[in-house]
Amino acid sequence: MMGKLLRFSIFGESHGKVVGCLIEGMPPGIRVDTTEIKKDLERRWGIRESSSSRREEDTPEILSGVFRAHTTGAPIAIVLKNRDAKSSYYEEIKYTPRPGHSDYTASVRYFGYNDYRGGGFFSGRLTAAMVVAGYFARKVLEREGVRVRGYIKRIGDIEANVSLENLFSSALLCPDEEAWEKMKRRIEDIRNEGDSIGGIVESVAIGVPAGLGGPFDDDLEGELSRAFFAIPGVKGVEFGAGFRFSVMKGSEANDNLIVRNGKLETDGNNMGGILGGISNGMPIVARVVFKPTPSIYKEQKTVDLRRMENVSLKLKGRFDTCIVPKAVVVIESMMAFVLADHLLRRYSYLYFMDDKI
Amino acid sequence: MMGKLLRFSIFGESHGKVVGCLIEGMPPGIRVDTTEIKKDLERRWGIRESSSSRREEDTPEILSGVFRAHTTGAPIAIVLKNRDAKSSYYEEIKYTPRPGHSDYTASVRYFGYNDYRGGGFFSGRLTAAMVVAGYFARKVLEREGVRVRGYIKRIGDIEANVSLENLFSSALLCPDEEAWEKMKRRIEDIRNEGDSIGGIVESVAIGVPAGLGGPFDDDLEGELSRAFFAIPGVKGVEFGAGFRFSVMKGSEANDNLIVRNGKLETDGNNMGGILGGISNGMPIVARVVFKPTPSIYKEQKTVDLRRMENVSLKLKGRFDTCIVPKAVVVIESMMAFVLADHLLRRYSYLYFMDDKI
Amino acid sequence: MMGKLLRFSIFGESHGKVVGCLIEGMPPGIRVDTTEIKKDLERRWGIRESSSSRREEDTPEILSGVFRAHTTGAPIAIVLKNRDAKSSYYEEIKYTPRPGHSDYTASVRYFGYNDYRGGGFFSGRLTAAMVVAGYFARKVLEREGVRVRGYIKRIGDIEANVSLENLFSSALLCPDEEAWEKMKRRIEDIRNEGDSIGGIVESVAIGVPAGLGGPFDDDLEGELSRAFFAIPGVKGVEFGAGFRFSVMKGSEANDNLIVRNGKLETDGNNMGGILGGISNGMPIVARVVFKPTPSIYKEQKTVDLRRMENVSLKLKGRFDTCIVPKAVVVIESMMAFVLADHLLRRYSYLYFMDDKI
Amino acid sequence: MMGKLLRFSIFGESHGKVVGCLIEGMPPGIRVDTTEIKKDLERRWGIRESSSSRREEDTPEILSGVFRAHTTGAPIAIVLKNRDAKSSYYEEIKYTPRPGHSDYTASVRYFGYNDYRGGGFFSGRLTAAMVVAGYFARKVLEREGVRVRGYIKRIGDIEANVSLENLFSSALLCPDEEAWEKMKRRIEDIRNEGDSIGGIVESVAIGVPAGLGGPFDDDLEGELSRAFFAIPGVKGVEFGAGFRFSVMKGSEANDNLIVRNGKLETDGNNMGGILGGISNGMPIVARVVFKPTPSIYKEQKTVDLRRMENVSLKLKGRFDTCIVPKAVVVIESMMAFVLADHLLRRYSYLYFMDDKI
Repeated sequence: MMGKLLRFSIFGESHGKVVGCLIEGMPPGIRVDTTEIKKDLERRWGIRESSSSRREEDTPEILSGVFRAHTTGAPIAIVLKNRDAKSSYYEEIKYTPRPGHSDYTASVRYFGYNDYRGGGFFSGRLTAAMVVAGYFARKVLEREGVRVRGYIKRIGDIEANVSLENLFSSALLCPDEEAWEKMKRRIEDIRNEGDSIGGIVESVAIGVPAGLGGPFDDDLEGELSRAFFAIPGVKGVEFGAGFRFSVMKGSEANDNLIVRNGKLETDGNNMGGILGGISNGMPIVARVVFKPTPSIYKEQKTVDLRRMENVSLKLKGRFDTCIVPKAVVVIESMMAFVLADHLLRRYSYLYFMDDKI
Repeated sequence: MMGKLLRFSIFGESHGKVVGCLIEGMPPGIRVDTTEIKKDLERRWGIRESSSSRREEDTPEILSGVFRAHTTGAPIAIVLKNRDAKSSYYEEIKYTPRPGHSDYTASVRYFGYNDYRGGGFFSGRLTAAMVVAGYFARKVLEREGVRVRGYIKRIGDIEANVSLENLFSSALLCPDEEAWEKMKRRIEDIRNEGDSIGGIVESVAIGVPAGLGGPFDDDLEGELSRAFFAIPGVKGVEFGAGFRFSVMKGSEANDNLIVRNGKLETDGNNMGGILGGISNGMPIVARVVFKPTPSIYKEQKTVDLRRMENVSLKLKGRFDTCIVPKAVVVIESMMAFVLADHLLRRYSYLYFMDDKI
Repeated sequence: MMGKLLRFSIFGESHGKVVGCLIEGMPPGIRVDTTEIKKDLERRWGIRESSSSRREEDTPEILSGVFRAHTTGAPIAIVLKNRDAKSSYYEEIKYTPRPGHSDYTASVRYFGYNDYRGGGFFSGRLTAAMVVAGYFARKVLEREGVRVRGYIKRIGDIEANVSLENLFSSALLCPDEEAWEKMKRRIEDIRNEGDSIGGIVESVAIGVPAGLGGPFDDDLEGELSRAFFAIPGVKGVEFGAGFRFSVMKGSEANDNLIVRNGKLETDGNNMGGILGGISNGMPIVARVVFKPTPSIYKEQKTVDLRRMENVSLKLKGRFDTCIVPKAVVVIESMMAFVLADHLLRRYSYLYFMDDKI
Repeated sequence: MMGKLLRFSIFGESHGKVVGCLIEGMPPGIRVDTTEIKKDLERRWGIRESSSSRREEDTPEILSGVFRAHTTGAPIAIVLKNRDAKSSYYEEIKYTPRPGHSDYTASVRYFGYNDYRGGGFFSGRLTAAMVVAGYFARKVLEREGVRVRGYIKRIGDIEANVSLENLFSSALLCPDEEAWEKMKRRIEDIRNEGDSIGGIVESVAIGVPAGLGGPFDDDLEGELSRAFFAIPGVKGVEFGAGFRFSVMKGSEANDNLIVRNGKLETDGNNMGGILGGISNGMPIVARVVFKPTPSIYKEQKTVDLRRMENVSLKLKGRFDTCIVPKAVVVIESMMAFVLADHLLRRYSYLYFMDDKI
């Protein structure tokens, strides 16, 4: 379970009956449209050509918490049925954990009882459930005018250059069209090599009021990063100038405060919209790195756990060359969820402090 | 409150009576020695020459939870008295929030009621309370043979090169002596400029058994990153190859599994000891970036909140040129805390699964 | 979400698609048999003659977390489909909240968006999901030899007298056969009156090791009572001598400690197996009072919310005369769940304290 | 840690340096007056004549979270120093656990490392920390016009009869003066016998808006009862008609809904102000039973743990004959805390639902 006022859990397995999510604390009276959810889920397809050939229709089935197309305030359970799963291959590689995969750690963690077919609960398929949860979070954010939008910042050494305006007006997974074309070609090349490639997603939230988050366990960066790391394949998270801060001086790093149109803003956004764990009213900017898909067609070394012997492994099956395109909407969803939870927490204070008037 | 079985909160203000922590869920029977805590706290002094001239003796006073020098299992409250605080200056700058500081966001968050003197609850001084909590976490880890050690990976463009052996045998904040000398000189230079500089801390845990953490909300990377972001000044966290994964291919990134001395290991550690959110038995390697200290002596722009006017600001007072040296033990402490909590959670399963025998 | 290491949530509505539960933190490797779950669910039928004529087959469908008939350690989602729901009547009484029901409070809480058909998420039907969760909890308790068993202590003024031996060997909902016959007749009489009746369930856990629970937020009585109050209709909870303590002297109330067969026990069990919030190794004895089913056929007064006018209400439909017989297995399930969670928490300490040997 | 938005923990030991509490999530800007806290603490003295002769001045020392006499929003740590503790006697009885006390269970729970002097963390002295937390909760409730007031409902077989008006206008611990006189005499008699006596506290909250709480884990009765059971000596909790519901018919039990002065109310309050776990706008009425103080001067049986032999025990020392008078303000404090937390949670929804206007 993630979140405090708005909360969600995910369940299901890659090759099980369903993947799904349970959302608690959702405000009542919000109109829900499953065709909208489907659209969000379609953004998770990424680049179909270079993706795993597995195709899931992903028609969300709402089991509870929605009545006459509106949220009731009761827990919302939603499932997506799995159809196109091919499990037999996973029996073959059951005792030879795939390098870079959670096969081995999951087996240790669950004493060998984990559902290893297609990664089970550790599968990227579970991110579909995150996207569903994100749909509801966005509905909460909408009322405040908060919008969240991500894009592919980097694939390999190809980095995109995207302005805020561009980002929120483009429908592309990477609004820098030139970079986007290069990225797609690069992915295709790597695919032909039988290899995979990593990348970075940048996600931005605009319209976030100042005052969300807090110090220590309420820290907005901490909560966002925890949510991002829940996504399979994430190995790093940074905000604003992020790791570049290490080579910056204070005089370069500090965003100066200025008055603009009678409103307090900063003259840059190195802080990525968060200071002291609290939103400052500027766009919240997070970057998340994904490691290359661990499943590749090249020969790798692993261990046969039955005989504890070094063996070589050549994977067959359907894999993504690069999960980054699929991950954009997932990152957005997790960002939306954390922000929506913190917005609801913030409302409690606002009401109490007579900002209700 | 952070953690699930082992938990802690911090309290206090930079210029208040105390800073302190409350630790819950600590196993009983662990020998506690305040001189050891003091030693950990001394590691938080960093480089005294280039630090704020504020000097705190930091003698921990244990208020509860320890009886006859052993933990009792009851909540442990510990305070460090503040003595060397100079508050008058903060009255002067009360209405001109310092760029890069939480002055403005804290004021919004708390409707102007926050204790603004020295940053109040947002002050780096609170990290002393984290170090105290870390002391207890290390005691839990000790029984399992887990050791945690951090060092300064980078200050500006000076990067250290440190081996695992070197790290765990050296007493230096940066065991790469050549880099360390350069770093100190660089900090001194920047100090003389009236500026500040950022950097990176790398922290490593060895002896961590495979199986700690889990998917989604149990994700070890997510929990660690959330704990790191609770430290003032942190703007990014990565594990293993981290952001370098974005330019790597799967064939480069994947750590192959191998048998070594009858034990399963990996031939590299790009994963930083964590796969699928679960420790794999290899050293856990995290890197955390700190932004430059926002307090600098150079002129900056800010806003006078009383008249909503742009003004310039030239800070006076006692500041650190670089907080990274002080942060090493803080990062270690947070890492130790998260690992200790997860170790205790893991013990529950081990006992249940008859690994008790 | 209830619980700390073992956790569960419920979802669904009385007249929605399903009711279900999501269980997290379940240890892996536990054999699951849906026919066993069905048996537990059948115990929830109570006395069929005097129950609502609604009949649900209650075939649990496991959506996740179980692989090859064993728990995997991943979240377990289970649903029971609703089939025999008749909703049209609830449209009629939508604006005239039924006295003693949550109709009015739910509407306030959720601003009128709650699913009011059959009580929606507030329906007693949701207790089926609690029973499913209880099945898994019992599996955890089984390994430790803990058994949980409840019975009807009282219906109206008919009180049963049941020994521990009798309780754990009888299959009756009230093992005091004489009282049981009287209770059934009483319920039948009240049914014929068009009224309903309240009662008390007593639940006992044997084999619980000393040391479960703790002070303050770990208090076993507090955790159990919170779980019991989550069941619709519960209005009071007591342990051991409970409210009778108010008329007792310390010399009567205290259970003396004695050595029996080399083991420390008490010579009575006024404490109901819990002292200081911690189990003492004696049977844990809780009593839970249920108010009479609010739905009765007699005329009642309520308010038409459209015109804010006092009106009279005469309910039609299918109601239980007494929910107490149905509640026995629900109380057991909640007790089992709390004990299983605390047992797992306890295992963490036992492993750490070298009781692993 | 108890609570979700408003949270608190307690720490300290009966014969340690302090008892104290840590409060998190407190709204900023609330005026704090330690003389008011002292007054609340004085209500915890009960009847001085029949209380333990231990006298604590109980001057609260605020360590953090309050600046210029107002809450800042940061965690509030407050301690009460222990002065009048006599520990030597507890060495004598260290191996002979007192019947009815947590001596034995605490020792099992903490493997003998617990601070056994005066009950340590299990002591009734810790309730002073609860009263301090309650002070802050009342401040939150005040703005909404919610008032909480408890009284002694029963000591032994003497039951008080108190109207709502009487309760909120009287300063007595039991506003039924006749019953109160009898109670005091009864306590004196029992004191002279060397025995102790149990009793019941009733606590009432008025002005609570409808809509606080919720089903399952948000259940207001569940949350209140959990908070009450955290108080040492509590063995049962009931709301409204409570255990009397077991002998009631639905036609007697249901509170009819009526319109009074244009407002929806009920014609009785058997429900104690809560239906479906949600407040209905009527006074919230809870009754809590306390077992007799376990420490009595009469001879009792216990076990010498060193030799595992049955021995007899005759306690010396300073004990309360009846803790119920002291408990009134403690029950109020816990009730206030839970209500304040739920009020803040509710505000979040109200703001979101445009009830901000």
